[in-house]
Amino acid sequence: MANQKPSIPKGTRDFGPTEMARRNYIFNTIRQVYALYGYRQIETPSMELLGTLMGKYGEEGDKLLFKVLNSGDFTRPVSTQDYEDHDAPWLSARFCEKGLRYDLTVPFARYVVQHRDELSLPFKRFQIQPVWRADRPQKGRYREFYQCDADVVGSDSLLNEVELLEIVDEVYRRLGVRVGIKVNNRKILSGIAEVIGATDRIVELTVAIDKLDKIGLDGVNACLLADGFTPGQVEKLQPIISLSGSLEEKLATMRQVLSQSETGLLGCREVETVLTAYRGHAAAELDLTLARGLNYYTGCIFEVKALDVAIGSINGGGRYDNLTGIFGLPGLSGVGISFGADRIYDVLDQLGLFPDETAAGARLLFINFGEREADYCLRQARLTRQAGIPTEVYPDPAKMKKQMQYANALHVPYVALCGEQEMQEGLIALKDMATGEQQKLTVEEVIARLKG
Amino acid sequence: MANQKPSIPKGTRDFGPTEMARRNYIFNTIRQVYALYGYRQIETPSMELLGTLMGKYGEEGDKLLFKVLNSGDFTRPVSTQDYEDHDAPWLSARFCEKGLRYDLTVPFARYVVQHRDELSLPFKRFQIQPVWRADRPQKGRYREFYQCDADVVGSDSLLNEVELLEIVDEVYRRLGVRVGIKVNNRKILSGIAEVIGATDRIVELTVAIDKLDKIGLDGVNACLLADGFTPGQVEKLQPIISLSGSLEEKLATMRQVLSQSETGLLGCREVETVLTAYRGHAAAELDLTLARGLNYYTGCIFEVKALDVAIGSINGGGRYDNLTGIFGLPGLSGVGISFGADRIYDVLDQLGLFPDETAAGARLLFINFGEREADYCLRQARLTRQAGIPTEVYPDPAKMKKQMQYANALHVPYVALCGEQEMQEGLIALKDMATGEQQKLTVEEVIARLKG
Repeated sequence: MANQKPSIPKGTRDFGPTEMARRNYIFNTIRQVYALYGYRQIETPSMELLGTLMGKYGEEGDKLLFKVLNSGDFTRPVSTQDYEDHDAPWLSARFCEKGLRYDLTVPFARYVVQHRDELSLPFKRFQIQPVWRADRPQKGRYREFYQCDADVVGSDSLLNEVELLEIVDEVYRRLGVRVGIKVNNRKILSGIAEVIGATDRIVELTVAIDKLDKIGLDGVNACLLADGFTPGQVEKLQPIISLSGSLEEKLATMRQVLSQSETGLLGCREVETVLTAYRGHAAAELDLTLARGLNYYTGCIFEVKALDVAIGSINGGGRYDNLTGIFGLPGLSGVGISFGADRIYDVLDQLGLFPDETAAGARLLFINFGEREADYCLRQARLTRQAGIPTEVYPDPAKMKKQMQYANALHVPYVALCGEQEMQEGLIALKDMATGEQQKLTVEEVIARLKG
Repeated sequence: MANQKPSIPKGTRDFGPTEMARRNYIFNTIRQVYALYGYRQIETPSMELLGTLMGKYGEEGDKLLFKVLNSGDFTRPVSTQDYEDHDAPWLSARFCEKGLRYDLTVPFARYVVQHRDELSLPFKRFQIQPVWRADRPQKGRYREFYQCDADVVGSDSLLNEVELLEIVDEVYRRLGVRVGIKVNNRKILSGIAEVIGATDRIVELTVAIDKLDKIGLDGVNACLLADGFTPGQVEKLQPIISLSGSLEEKLATMRQVLSQSETGLLGCREVETVLTAYRGHAAAELDLTLARGLNYYTGCIFEVKALDVAIGSINGGGRYDNLTGIFGLPGLSGVGISFGADRIYDVLDQLGLFPDETAAGARLLFINFGEREADYCLRQARLTRQAGIPTEVYPDPAKMKKQMQYANALHVPYVALCGEQEMQEGLIALKDMATGEQQKLTVEEVIARLKG
């Protein structure tokens, strides 16, 4: 046992001090911007009743739920005969009544319905909590990871979409990440499918159009024909596949193509309203190939990509109607966004965008030369801490070399040395760890230096 | 279904916006003070391998662990015969390899051992995460609750104890809660048991002494005799039961009683060192009846009580030797504290100590009079948000009354009304919701007012 290191479940992670400081930097940035727009934080339990979770994420999702074994004699409802006769899903439903949260959206819908009498609509909430999925772990995919969601329910206004785009823009502006925002609308996609008479084939359509950059217009057309679209349908799609130009030009083309679809035209109007009102720094543009979560979203859809790192979408969102209907409260429309903290972490890491402070623990370490000196240091440390400077006093009178190694390992920028002489003079010998420079200062001077 | 509200597992809770803001106020205060003392945050996975958790919390603790069902066909290792032959604990060990974190201490010990090659000792970490226990839910006891722990491992110095007491003091000073800190030392208790020849009866001893205030010296003596202590033992305990006076006086008495116990005298010296060096605002005093976690702690023990609310201990901690030994890394001593966030919440709530800001979402709400006005508001809101003022624009052009009700329900202190006239003048009519006063201002003036 002594030689076998303990470990953690596969797909889970420990976050050490530096990683945590960096993750907190991301979470705090998102939290601050959400709050600036009046979104208010809630938290829901890690465990939900399985009745709340099951059937909400498709058949595959049900399999990926972590189920929690009932306490006490969980076997009671299942006889030996039952055990012999039934399969794992059947049995798990008898052994377990709770499961771990799979996302933040379903618990939010449950929350809204359960607390509807206490809520003032529209309800703007954000939520930053871990979720769990029994996915096969692989690079960048974990079984426990954080989601950072903001949603508003109970308002149909497109102002919400505009503000969510501005939130996205502001978060990445603060993080220093250049992003592009892609916007689409489920109603436009429905309209296209409608006018070519292929309402059930939106996905194949967008997948094919998405290949334009790689295989060119002829390639896309070939694909569509191979997928079984008729030459007539492909003909009608030509203006859409090669859609380009300014927003006005794109919309003009789209409105021509969609002139026979009321839904499609409504989608165009929604996109126009949102993109005209949006005034962020990052470019936001209509992209017809964007088709995320089709079964889920009903209006605007958006997705964010980092411009300087090839890492896929780091942000997504959209409008969904009737989210709370599954819990018996129909008629509430919602729109939301979700930040992927892990991917944002990787982007900031790759671009070297984490601020220096995020690496730091204490800013000042008092070296411990012995009992009397430590008492002197403790008194000085009280003053630097009162001034808000994170300070450590090395607890043991260890060898100087060991204490300096500790300071180096923790990237403490300043070290205080207080020996016999400094104690007599009432001073602190302050060493700048970057330059190696050392200077005798009063504690007030030390505070001024470290705060400056 | 439509009439049946969804619910959550018993013993768990939703935290709405106001509760969350208040909880964050507590967590942030604790976090800031921990950081000021150089403690660095880590997080560990919610799920640990059952091998890490089982056997660490006693037999009762094992029963209270939430176990997570293995994914896929969890029944594979258990034949029908096995199912018939074995009880729930045996079966659960086959069906489940993971469990939910029961506290933060064992995962921390696991973390230290697993990452020992990356850590610089002493390692000062704090951790604020939920834990789960399948306890019978009751008032004030939940199945999911947060712990806020700070521990340092790899240093025997009593300076750590001093700093932890100062951290406790500083957190409650910031929260505005008057507290008393009780300090004891496991070695003193061992010493007492040693000198009266009853090394296995420390608990009965402290329980009896603890009753002094209620039943007087004669009562305590009667209790001890009834518990089977001999008249000779009770005689020897007299100076301890009625221990009083200053720290010096108490220690002088203790040293006399413990003169034959090396361990006891060492405990006295430790208490003296810690309490002499401690210079917090809250009184910290030696209390021999304090005997928390006896099987666990080996040196200093402390406990904190709120002076103005009768609610029991809101904080505890102490030194333990060899915590990491269970994971194959012996010889590391540690000392730590834990804040009970739920109890602190109740204390602040009962004493009315939550700052006003913790009730608030947005500070400013723009009333929505229609599309054109909303566009104007959105532009003004960009400026107030840039100035750091949490701002909402009501998304729908709903009835004025409804919008004002929303502002009231969310305790938004200021409402902005921008109609035709304000738009022409480029002004904002700002209404102070507390006084009802209304004034036309430029957006710069609004910002100055709300920031002031």
